[in-house]
Parts: sequence; structure tokens; C-alpha cells
Amino acid sequence: MFSNNQNTSGKHMICDLTNIKNTELLNDNTKIKELFDNICKKYNYTILNRMEHIFEPQGITILYLLSESHISIHTFPERNYAALDIYTCREYENNNIYEEIYEYIIKEFKAKKEEPIIIDRNFF
Amino acid sequence: MFSNNQNTSGKHMICDLTNIKNTELLNDNTKIKELFDNICKKYNYTILNRMEHIFEPQGITILYLLSESHISIHTFPERNYAALDIYTCREYENNNIYEEIYEYIIKEFKAKKEEPIIIDRNFF
Repeated sequence: MFSNNQNTSGKHMICDLTNIKNTELLNDNTKIKELFDNICKKYNYTILNRMEHIFEPQGITILYLLSESHISIHTFPERNYAALDIYTCREYENNNIYEEIYEYIIKEFKAKKEEPIIIDRNFF
Repeated sequence: MFSNNQNTSGKHMICDLTNIKNTELLNDNTKIKELFDNICKKYNYTILNRMEHIFEPQGITILYLLSESHISIHTFPERNYAALDIYTCREYENNNIYEEIYEYIIKEFKAKKEEPIIIDRNFF
């Protein structure tokens, strides 16, 4: 797992999800929002607003505006690919929470487990 | 400038803006949207939706949902810091457009010029 591993209060995880076996999820905005809602509930991220766009003929973008920053997803069913980001500001001591979230996301999408990029954003 | 430099159609630039001299911009959602609108107009990114949140006592989040993916900013006036991301999908041959955008952002915020992270997102 790549991490620049600075002391920080902001962590940004970049997940490029490939080889997805749960392909229905790529076209299901309701289920993706359930997934995001579950993450926010479990880890106490506060959802302030959401927006989404359903592309024709396929593909979904969903953006969550959080008290802690944001979550985004862009799905590309035609490429069996989704680009998912979680960026939250909190006093993190390590990457454990993000590693748990990554495992959950991989499990739900039935995607290939790779190395997400976790970037400690500057926060002076 | 860090770049993983794969062949890709998706580029994600992560800008941690520090030492900002144009501190008024950190609290001016209208001017930040003008800045984003200018970028989208100049580089032909299509804005599908926007959302924003003004935090109390300070700080702004603005998210742009684009045809090409998204733009986000989270400002922290109390830390003279802003976290800005631009992620767009297009057939890029190099980082030139993002380097131009970065220069424009730095100029507008009068921020310290650093090395933004530019990540080529997988796009199979």
C-alpha cells in the first residue's frame, strides 16, 4: 500500500477498482449510496449533501459532501472499472480505518484486491 | 512533480495549497466558483452540477460534478490551507494542461508553488 505517511489530519484513499464481478453494482446508484451510507454510519462521517448523475448509455457519478471532506465514485461499466475516492479529515494515527473500508469496498464490488493509494494531505 | 505516468485517459491532480497570500479567496465561495468556471470553460470540461457548504465559523467545500469526473476544494482559512483536486477523463498525452491549471490556481490564490501530485488513474 502506497502511503507518504506524514503526520496529518487528512487522509485521501484512491481506489481504482478493476475485475469487478458484481457488475450490477456499477449501474446501481441506490446500492452504491447504501454502501457509502454504511461507511459513513460505521465510521461516523457526517453526510451534508449528495449529488449524482446517471450517464447515458451507462456509468454513474456520485459525490458525497461530508463534514470531514468528500467521497466520490465514477463507474465505467463498459470497462468493468470504478474510480472511488475517500478523503476525510480527522486525527488518524494510522491507515487501519481506510484498510477496513477498502476491504469492505472490495468485498461489495467483488473486485480485484490491489493496493489503494493512501495520501496524507497536508494540514498545517 | 510526482506522476506515475502510465498510459491513461484519467488524470487526477492533488493540490495542497499553502502559504496563501490571497486569504480572502479562502472564504469567498463565489470567487472560487468563478475560478473553477474559468478552468472548465478554458479546457472544455462540462459542468453537470455543483454543490457547496459554508462551514461555521469558516471554511468552504465546493464540489463540481463534471461530464469528465469532478473538481473539489476544501478550504481551511484558520490554517491558511486549501485542498484542491481535479480529476478528469480525457485522452491526455502529457501533463501540460494540468501544469497550466496548477499555475493558474497558484497565481489566483497567491500560494506557495509546490509539486502537485498528478496520478494517472487506471482506465482499462
